[in-house]
Amino acid sequence: MSDINLKSGSITFKNALYLESGRILEPFEIVYETYGKQNDDKDNTIVVCHALSGSHHAAGESKDNAKPGWWNNLIGSKKPIDTDRYFVICSNVIGSCFGSTGPTSPMYPRLELYRMRFPVVTVKDMVKAQRLLLDKLGISSVHAVIGGSMGGMQALHYAIDFPNFAKHIIAMATTYATSPWAISFNKVAVQSIVSDPSFMGGNYDVEAVREGGLSGASIGRMAGHISFLSPESMNKKFGRDYLATDGLFDLFGRFQVERYLDYNGGNFPKWFDPLAFLYIVKAINIYDLARGYDSLERALERVRSRIHLFGFKRDLLFLPEEMELIDQTMKKIGRGELSRFYMIDSDYGHDSFLVEIDKFSDKIADILER
Amino acid sequence: MSDINLKSGSITFKNALYLESGRILEPFEIVYETYGKQNDDKDNTIVVCHALSGSHHAAGESKDNAKPGWWNNLIGSKKPIDTDRYFVICSNVIGSCFGSTGPTSPMYPRLELYRMRFPVVTVKDMVKAQRLLLDKLGISSVHAVIGGSMGGMQALHYAIDFPNFAKHIIAMATTYATSPWAISFNKVAVQSIVSDPSFMGGNYDVEAVREGGLSGASIGRMAGHISFLSPESMNKKFGRDYLATDGLFDLFGRFQVERYLDYNGGNFPKWFDPLAFLYIVKAINIYDLARGYDSLERALERVRSRIHLFGFKRDLLFLPEEMELIDQTMKKIGRGELSRFYMIDSDYGHDSFLVEIDKFSDKIADILER
Repeated sequence: MSDINLKSGSITFKNALYLESGRILEPFEIVYETYGKQNDDKDNTIVVCHALSGSHHAAGESKDNAKPGWWNNLIGSKKPIDTDRYFVICSNVIGSCFGSTGPTSPMYPRLELYRMRFPVVTVKDMVKAQRLLLDKLGISSVHAVIGGSMGGMQALHYAIDFPNFAKHIIAMATTYATSPWAISFNKVAVQSIVSDPSFMGGNYDVEAVREGGLSGASIGRMAGHISFLSPESMNKKFGRDYLATDGLFDLFGRFQVERYLDYNGGNFPKWFDPLAFLYIVKAINIYDLARGYDSLERALERVRSRIHLFGFKRDLLFLPEEMELIDQTMKKIGRGELSRFYMIDSDYGHDSFLVEIDKFSDKIADILER
Repeated sequence: MSDINLKSGSITFKNALYLESGRILEPFEIVYETYGKQNDDKDNTIVVCHALSGSHHAAGESKDNAKPGWWNNLIGSKKPIDTDRYFVICSNVIGSCFGSTGPTSPMYPRLELYRMRFPVVTVKDMVKAQRLLLDKLGISSVHAVIGGSMGGMQALHYAIDFPNFAKHIIAMATTYATSPWAISFNKVAVQSIVSDPSFMGGNYDVEAVREGGLSGASIGRMAGHISFLSPESMNKKFGRDYLATDGLFDLFGRFQVERYLDYNGGNFPKWFDPLAFLYIVKAINIYDLARGYDSLERALERVRSRIHLFGFKRDLLFLPEEMELIDQTMKKIGRGELSRFYMIDSDYGHDSFLVEIDKFSDKIADILER
């Protein structure tokens, strides 16, 4: 048994989820993990939101998944998000492929899979579904919501869509609306998937793909991995090291950085479903915190939580300036006291929020302490 | 007839070109264009070097090519590189696909094409071949060599490999050795080509590909187009504009930036040969000005030309810091008087050297005037 009291759960909702697009999802299922224990005052809950390729397995080692969770360095006993004190919950977003309803789920009452008949979901929809889960678990307000990248988008949606729900919103390495630059990287990934003949318009063999059958998804993921790093972190990580076994003048001889991309790209389709990728990327691309409002100012006027915005200096996917603009807008509308921007000095790039925990963990612990 | 006195030429060399790899290219052909006229003192020649997907058609409108050359705003009568005063020559690099010998050239004496039997060529080899062309044309020294990106790599090789050849070396948006970051973007492009079933291990139908048959090359080119721009230039160029005809909640509805990538990526295989792309990318990846020397310092000690290094502030492919390091190294070895670094303030990104001529044209004209 894990010392962080890891528990897995799953809830099926028979009522319809009304989506931003006007379509509905019915029924839908959400899988989740919890760590730590709810206290008697029920005021120690922290909601953790995952990024594009993340899952509800944020910390510890689960029965299903021997690999430590994706934020295992941040969440745990005596860690910055201390599971001895807080009750932490992380759920898999709808549209994903780790158990919550997504494009490779069966389309009830038929047993065939949704595939491309799955409705487009938005980050707002993901958060709406999570709120229904939390309601079901008897959680009507929380101490904090925290997430990075698409997880940060969700955290910001909590602040706007459910103003009285969270005391603290911690959004890292994210933005108020996805930039054309980020959309471009996604475009390469999407195009490489749909152009792969094995994709077959979404009717691919799910099992065969898991065994390595969709090389298109691998190529797209390489573009993703570029955007997660930075020129500086690549210099540190790989330099111009060349594989010793390959001749420099072999056409397909590889630099270490190429091996890294081959490895990470090549594995991706084995553990992440290509259709789920298309749907989540779509949600990220059309993410816009101000949609439905006249402006970002009007959207942010709804905020009642304290919002903590973490930008990473070399993040080339979601520039720290984009997070700073949220803080500036809060000040502009007279809500400066609720907002704070932290610039984290890091060379790593976008993935800093996952791998350079020590650069910001003290700040997270401080915020949660208040 | 063009007012810049455009002339096209082609020379076939029957002697072997000894390549850096130890292999030879024999025979080989180089195609070129010239603009303006050589003066009586034969001291007004400017060599222009092209980038990855460029060609010898740098300026004017040729018989074969109605489109203005790729540096038409910089080169011409009364332009910064004034063809009324200078005799300008640009040749297609070996390995390319616009007439000089490359992987889709016939492998004499057989008529079949080289394809993947073509030897790997380096930037140093490209310059060596150009020097043979210039010799043949009776040009033994020039006023300046100028180029951007891979063209800048060639310009720097002139400075090291032929120290007494050029009075001025102007290298823009380039580096002293290709970074893992730039190699990564190339990796996506290479992988997308070789994974396309139509590539057939390099034995694709050349004509069919020109009619749009290699979608892999399109995807790779999208990654290239990202690296040519910057987050700032994409914000200005596209913002978050969405195609009016597509519903926001359509899975494949597109942002303007996605249409731009579809268009530029989609056209690429129609005008640029995928094998030539692989070979030129290989030359760029293994480009290292210091190869064959103990260090960059030792390599730069050979320089006798004045070297003018132009970095562009938002160039994310070849960071201006990389050009500045060349200048710093020149100072370090006591050759500071021969070197100057210009930081061009631009939002555009790597492509600035092609599209924001007005940001640096005065400086170019000044340098050539000296």
